[in-house]
Amino acid sequence: MTTADARNQLPLRLLPLGGLGEIGKNMMVVEYGEDIVVIDAGVLFPEVDMPGIDVVIPNMDYLADNAERVRAVLITHGHEDHIGAVPHLLNRLNVPVYAPRMAIELVRQKLRNAGLLADAELNRVAPGEKIRAGDLDVEWFDVTHSIPDACGIAIDTPLGKVVHTGDFKIDHDPMVGEPSDLRQLARISNDGVFLLMSDSTYAEEEGASESDRAVTDGLFGLIAEAPGRVIVSSFASQIARIQIVADAAEAFDRKLVVLGRSMVENTKLARELGHLRIPDGLMISAAEAESLPERRVIVMTTGSQGEPSSGLVRMSRDQHREISIREDDTIILSANTIPGNEVAVNDSINDLVQLGARVVTNRQANTHVSGHARREELRLVLNLTRPQYFVPVHGEFRMLRAHADLAVDQGVAPENSIVLTDGDVLELTSQSAEIVDREVAGHIFVHGLGLWDEAGNVVVERRSLAREGIVTVSLAIDRDNRRIVGEPRLVSMGFVHAADAESLFEDTRDELQPVLERFSNENLEWNELEDLIRATVGRYLTRRTKRRPLVIPVTIDV
Amino acid sequence: MTTADARNQLPLRLLPLGGLGEIGKNMMVVEYGEDIVVIDAGVLFPEVDMPGIDVVIPNMDYLADNAERVRAVLITHGHEDHIGAVPHLLNRLNVPVYAPRMAIELVRQKLRNAGLLADAELNRVAPGEKIRAGDLDVEWFDVTHSIPDACGIAIDTPLGKVVHTGDFKIDHDPMVGEPSDLRQLARISNDGVFLLMSDSTYAEEEGASESDRAVTDGLFGLIAEAPGRVIVSSFASQIARIQIVADAAEAFDRKLVVLGRSMVENTKLARELGHLRIPDGLMISAAEAESLPERRVIVMTTGSQGEPSSGLVRMSRDQHREISIREDDTIILSANTIPGNEVAVNDSINDLVQLGARVVTNRQANTHVSGHARREELRLVLNLTRPQYFVPVHGEFRMLRAHADLAVDQGVAPENSIVLTDGDVLELTSQSAEIVDREVAGHIFVHGLGLWDEAGNVVVERRSLAREGIVTVSLAIDRDNRRIVGEPRLVSMGFVHAADAESLFEDTRDELQPVLERFSNENLEWNELEDLIRATVGRYLTRRTKRRPLVIPVTIDV
Repeated sequence: MTTADARNQLPLRLLPLGGLGEIGKNMMVVEYGEDIVVIDAGVLFPEVDMPGIDVVIPNMDYLADNAERVRAVLITHGHEDHIGAVPHLLNRLNVPVYAPRMAIELVRQKLRNAGLLADAELNRVAPGEKIRAGDLDVEWFDVTHSIPDACGIAIDTPLGKVVHTGDFKIDHDPMVGEPSDLRQLARISNDGVFLLMSDSTYAEEEGASESDRAVTDGLFGLIAEAPGRVIVSSFASQIARIQIVADAAEAFDRKLVVLGRSMVENTKLARELGHLRIPDGLMISAAEAESLPERRVIVMTTGSQGEPSSGLVRMSRDQHREISIREDDTIILSANTIPGNEVAVNDSINDLVQLGARVVTNRQANTHVSGHARREELRLVLNLTRPQYFVPVHGEFRMLRAHADLAVDQGVAPENSIVLTDGDVLELTSQSAEIVDREVAGHIFVHGLGLWDEAGNVVVERRSLAREGIVTVSLAIDRDNRRIVGEPRLVSMGFVHAADAESLFEDTRDELQPVLERFSNENLEWNELEDLIRATVGRYLTRRTKRRPLVIPVTIDV
Repeated sequence: MTTADARNQLPLRLLPLGGLGEIGKNMMVVEYGEDIVVIDAGVLFPEVDMPGIDVVIPNMDYLADNAERVRAVLITHGHEDHIGAVPHLLNRLNVPVYAPRMAIELVRQKLRNAGLLADAELNRVAPGEKIRAGDLDVEWFDVTHSIPDACGIAIDTPLGKVVHTGDFKIDHDPMVGEPSDLRQLARISNDGVFLLMSDSTYAEEEGASESDRAVTDGLFGLIAEAPGRVIVSSFASQIARIQIVADAAEAFDRKLVVLGRSMVENTKLARELGHLRIPDGLMISAAEAESLPERRVIVMTTGSQGEPSSGLVRMSRDQHREISIREDDTIILSANTIPGNEVAVNDSINDLVQLGARVVTNRQANTHVSGHARREELRLVLNLTRPQYFVPVHGEFRMLRAHADLAVDQGVAPENSIVLTDGDVLELTSQSAEIVDREVAGHIFVHGLGLWDEAGNVVVERRSLAREGIVTVSLAIDRDNRRIVGEPRLVSMGFVHAADAESLFEDTRDELQPVLERFSNENLEWNELEDLIRATVGRYLTRRTKRRPLVIPVTIDV
């Protein structure tokens, strides 16, 4: 048996790590032999039941434990949910990062802010170019998505090509950047695709996505008829949208004001990379705009998701430093609302209307198209690649399920179309597919310098603090003489009005008296006393208030 | 001047109280002369930033302050957001309640549960019947909504009729109950409508709503092709939906299992009132269903909004006592997702799909129609009533704005089409409309026996507890000798892992030492010591963790 044959016998291993409801979205581990590569390293934004959490990152213990085998981090595109965890990853293992142009610059900014840039090895890759990661050849290919320089990734293994689409849609004539490169994908697929991983976000939606150009008509129409200022809100990374708005500014003799740190930075970066074509003199500052008639101004800012610190939300609360909403302002939300943000978005729209503005969303006009492929485009990619195995990625479970079923309709063998959950280790050979193991996966909550896994009780504690509030019962204890010194003190937060607390807590102290006497008279253990205080106070307060605050006894030795 | 003329000079006063984002939704106060009537007394469900809150009710201080003039509570229909606050209202003032059939029975249940039934004066009213409230004549008229016996209300005043539509749509042939009675509304309007208040929930949506009958085709189609059990989830009060499902059960030779306390109670009530026509023997228990083939069973339950304690959510977590989800179950969500519930609904769908079920929502099939009128129906009511004044009710600000603009398009004078916010006192005469005052309005948060207004710090405290956690610093102090006795004790919740807390808090105690020495050596005031502890500990912990927990000093005199 030759070495090549022996290598041929090795299985490919696939391990999705991290995602929130969405599986394999933020980090996918691909292993062949001694080589591990990581596709994307993203963050998720906390949900409402994760109070105070800044971001959620994948659990990377597996990578840390196998650090000597990790050859590279391969980035598909520059969205936060694909690059946001790169600093956390590089904090634990030093590994080269490969990414297309826009993404590598965003990673660079991120590492600079984290003070990790000096030690990082960052490599910019171009579509069609090959890099080597251990014994694996890796190649990027152009796709279209809602940020420039989005790519899919193809990895050459002895079993055949492993193709990962990244987040994508098919667009033959996008507003910025290159069209989806179907020829390159076809060429890659010619040698036989062993495994396809493909974006499932819109796997339940029939038809095909529209080009971002479709938004042009919608936005141009609204801007043409706007009587005063126009304020367009979108994602900071939506460069194509900024291009449309800049084009509209030029067409309708308006000047463009871009507001918000991230949008200003991304605009600058995209201009440097040649993605944005904005003539000199078109962009002005908010201060300069003040001296122009309102119908000569377009403002572009963030806040399409109702984010509290965004430009639009500040305007809606009349708290923006540079822009005050006026009667004849037209505000265009050029984005879809991400599930979970509906109430925040709704609130800001109501506030803006109350300030007199007209607010247009993509329910009233064509102000947004998505960056994800629908079923017809997913079929196209399945048909072009004809993979032996299919693993849907990027989507909630039901979307993955729909995509896996679609792959079967397109000819993938049912046993080869496999829905994974985070932590599953899938082993693929040319003969068989099997989930052989479960690694530690799941979410790590980040708050300040704190990191907690899901079992970590901090978030659980916060949820119950929020629901019921807390009562602490502090006692000074003379251990030697088994004596309570002074009066117990009860302090609460999030439980009752200060005004009601005094008499309630006085009654509670009375209720506690027999327990304290038992401590002095009987031979109660220390922890028995604490348990008794907790139970007695808890029961009494529940009886009085019909609620169940957390009761925390605190004893001080005096 | 005759008495009648003098009365003619009095203005009508209108005061919306309570709503959450939605104005005038839960309670509208109408005053004429010495008479006050209250239209609806509903609750709102807490939003995500109101942790632990059971429900939100309108601030009723104005009614309590004017109790001797309040003649009646007039209920339009039996939904929680229109009757849920009746017990809270009757707790503060004893006033007769008038409501149509289904609503009065639901109010009765509610008062019985609250132990308030014995003292309550409940009156069932029929459409077309007149009751007298002080000097005012009040008449109910049939409308269609997503609960049987929904009505609008017309109040006869010397200035003309005051018409309140309640929540409504136009349906000429509803599944249950009477069609919207346009003849009665036309007759009422013949005398001249002084003021119209009309449902604005769908005032941004063009066209007309569909009849609930339209859902019949959708549900029948899905049930016809279902290979196994069918589980339909909707609101407990959606009697028309239960009728459709019962009809489908009969048509396809299935038996019907109704699960969930509120749905069972409402089904029983609706059968007693003759709203539901279900043949004997069609309904069986979950236990009886176990002995039938799966394709002979339909289950109807709650949980269309992802409510944690609902039937469907328990099934999705495999925690339902009577139903375990199986491979060939078809689950139909026969409802729209209420804004704010998207994530919960999504999670439960993913869980159900993961258990092997097929889940159909109204995105895939016609499983739901709304109970609210769209613009074409709103025009019809405006055209039929031709009011002098128009006040949009039931909707977020932008919907009210859209409805007010629609009324102007339909011929109401612009200055007579008035958007109010809760607490505004609008005075209307035949000559003029003016907001003359602001009363205390807004939300009261209810948790157990606790009631807090928005300024109440309990909810604010909970939010910060949830975001940052809490650290208490307990000290035993010998006041007379200005001496700290024993060691300070630090206890935290929702802040750091227990494992990390020990060394962090030891360092914090070291940091605190100089402050405690100052207390002993200098002439520090009591509150100065507490402030210093708070500042020192807060600053130190923020430096170490990059977070800002609440720091609460607790001092015990020993």
